[in-house]
Amino acid sequence: MAVLKLVLAYDGTDFRGFARQPGHRTVEGVLLDGLERVLGRRPSLSAGGRTDAGVHAEGQVVSLEAEQDPRLVSRALNGMLAPEVVVRRASRAPKGFDARRSATARRYRYRIRTGEVPDPFTARYEWHRPGRYRPAPMRLAARHLRGAHDFASFCRPPKDGGSTVRTLRTLTISRGREVLDIGVRADGFLHQMVRSLVGTLVAVGEGRIDPEAIPAILSARDRSAAGPVAPPDGLTLVSVTYGPHPRTAAGSGLSGER
Amino acid sequence: MAVLKLVLAYDGTDFRGFARQPGHRTVEGVLLDGLERVLGRRPSLSAGGRTDAGVHAEGQVVSLEAEQDPRLVSRALNGMLAPEVVVRRASRAPKGFDARRSATARRYRYRIRTGEVPDPFTARYEWHRPGRYRPAPMRLAARHLRGAHDFASFCRPPKDGGSTVRTLRTLTISRGREVLDIGVRADGFLHQMVRSLVGTLVAVGEGRIDPEAIPAILSARDRSAAGPVAPPDGLTLVSVTYGPHPRTAAGSGLSGER
Repeated sequence: MAVLKLVLAYDGTDFRGFARQPGHRTVEGVLLDGLERVLGRRPSLSAGGRTDAGVHAEGQVVSLEAEQDPRLVSRALNGMLAPEVVVRRASRAPKGFDARRSATARRYRYRIRTGEVPDPFTARYEWHRPGRYRPAPMRLAARHLRGAHDFASFCRPPKDGGSTVRTLRTLTISRGREVLDIGVRADGFLHQMVRSLVGTLVAVGEGRIDPEAIPAILSARDRSAAGPVAPPDGLTLVSVTYGPHPRTAAGSGLSGER
Repeated sequence: MAVLKLVLAYDGTDFRGFARQPGHRTVEGVLLDGLERVLGRRPSLSAGGRTDAGVHAEGQVVSLEAEQDPRLVSRALNGMLAPEVVVRRASRAPKGFDARRSATARRYRYRIRTGEVPDPFTARYEWHRPGRYRPAPMRLAARHLRGAHDFASFCRPPKDGGSTVRTLRTLTISRGREVLDIGVRADGFLHQMVRSLVGTLVAVGEGRIDPEAIPAILSARDRSAAGPVAPPDGLTLVSVTYGPHPRTAAGSGLSGER
């Protein structure tokens, strides 16, 4: 069956995260309800990035099997779910494309509002934590965190007992007017890893954790060594990246990301 | 008694406008409830700009009589009302300052999302009206509307039977990526005037009203001659301007806008 790829944006405030959970309102749940009406059956979905309760997405990617015209599917879903959840792009994907398994990297942004007063128009997408953050120690801490490490101190222990080694390709601190953005990109993330990294970087920026303590925090492999987990509001899944598709890379020019 | 000046921002989505209305949730209503707790009495408020149900403000100005420290009042109000309503600045104003009567101009922005898909993060503050707008005829229509005119065709008839002549100092059309902003500034506005101007400009941009018909629409002094009233979501009171204060202009350097 043909594969459909959807790029989604959503305001996660009123959802219990992306993944379906019986009895809870989730993004996957409302998508499946909508798709059932369009396709006449309930498909199975694969999602490129994890978003927990209250986490937002500008570029979540979802794949499913469907013969229908991508434009028809996206229009019908937008008619039912917008503006809380929107399909930004819909396209055919090469056979074998799977939004989760084919992904090569995920990018997240965490936004902190540092001024004394929150902004009524963006408060749902920011952590309001007034203060003066010192970016230099935060950037030093970020340097210690980038690269391949065992991030056991920065995540919930995986249920399957799998590896906690990940490769952090990007970890940037950028300052705007009363705003601090932490940008992060990796092949994959562990559960609560971004929010745990953010909580630790904030503790560094506030002078509560020495940036030179980061290597010891990493090697402790103990969550209590790291800073607290930052709240979900400020976190947004920005994009999911796909490399050349294994079946089509050899000359067809097709790729998962179109 | 000393005069306090507050600059407010609010998300108007869940309010029945600014002005107090018994039995309805309004911005003035929640402000008065908050101020009553801070001041120990219910003050009377004057507001610089009108915002109807669903209209937002980035820089509404309110004045009241109070001896309390401006910082203390703003902190207490923010503790109770943020992030839906926030006090951005609080200061003493010269004696006789009145947020409504002392105002010399009001600036509003109306934002239209023109792309096919709404944006989940800004949908509360935009009118989603997909389409291709032609800015050249819109700018021509704006030229006909700027200046001093009788705007009876662009407002609800004033209850007091007062003048419908106003001076539109600014009326600009600016395009962003999938966004069209209409900026407007005047000494004062009539009821529903900005949304009526926007509805007409949109009709011009969509080719349903000829920009050269604007002078005839103005002279008709009839609402049915103009375009429909645009919905409130896209409208934001950006700022209220104050000239030199009459009592203090002569040399003290004080002004209402500080």
